[in-house]
Amino acid sequence: MGELITNPENLDWKKMNNLIPAVAQDYKSGDVLMLAYMNPESLQQTIETGLATYWSRRNGLWVKGETSGNIQLIKAIRVDCDEDALLLEIDPKGPACHKKDDAGNYRKTCFYRRLGGEII
Amino acid sequence: MGELITNPENLDWKKMNNLIPAVAQDYKSGDVLMLAYMNPESLQQTIETGLATYWSRRNGLWVKGETSGNIQLIKAIRVDCDEDALLLEIDPKGPACHKKDDAGNYRKTCFYRRLGGEII
Repeated sequence: MGELITNPENLDWKKMNNLIPAVAQDYKSGDVLMLAYMNPESLQQTIETGLATYWSRRNGLWVKGETSGNIQLIKAIRVDCDEDALLLEIDPKGPACHKKDDAGNYRKTCFYRRLGGEII
Repeated sequence: MGELITNPENLDWKKMNNLIPAVAQDYKSGDVLMLAYMNPESLQQTIETGLATYWSRRNGLWVKGETSGNIQLIKAIRVDCDEDALLLEIDPKGPACHKKDDAGNYRKTCFYRRLGGEII
C-alpha cells in the first residue's frame, strides 16, 4: 500500500511559474550529474520518449544530448513529498557537462567544483 | 590546476530572486534526500556552522533538523558549471522527510514516490 502519482498534472507547477527543478542522477553510480528545469511539456516529452528533456528559459525545449549524442535515458522519475521537485534516475550516454577538464575531456558531472575548496 | 570558488558571492543569485536550489545527497550511500533552497544568508550560516541551513519562502531561515534533531552535517558543498545550483554532500543524522511510511517511520528521502509507477 502506498502513494502513487500517475499524472504530471498533480505536480505543483504553480510554485515557480510552471517550472520544476529536475535533478539528474546516474542510476548506477549514484553520481548527481546536473540540475535543470522542466515545464509540463518537457516532462510529457520525457515520459513519452524516455529521454531527459528539459526546459531552458533561454532556448525552450531541450532534449539533452540531441546534438552531442550525450543523451540521458530515463530509468525512473521520482517525485518529492511536496511535489515540487523531480529526481531523474538516468543512464547517461556521455558526459552531462559542457565544460572540459584540464585534459580536454568533457566533465561527467556539472558539479565538479567545490565551494571554498579544491576540485576532488 | 583547477577552478576554485572561494566565495558564495560568485554564485548566480540573480537568476532566481536570491535563491539557489540545493540538493542534499547522503555522502556515503549516494541517496538523494531532498531539494530545498538557499539564500546568501542561509548559505553563509551553513558554511559557518557546518549544518545544512535552507531558506524557506514561508518560514525564513531553516536549520534542517533544529527541532527534530535530524540535522544534516555538511561534508562538502559542490557548485555546478553555471553556478546556479548547489550539491550538498551531507551526513544525515536522521530521516530527511517529514512524511511517514506505512510502518509509521519517517521516510529517509523525500523522493519516495515514482511518477506513474510504484513506490520502490
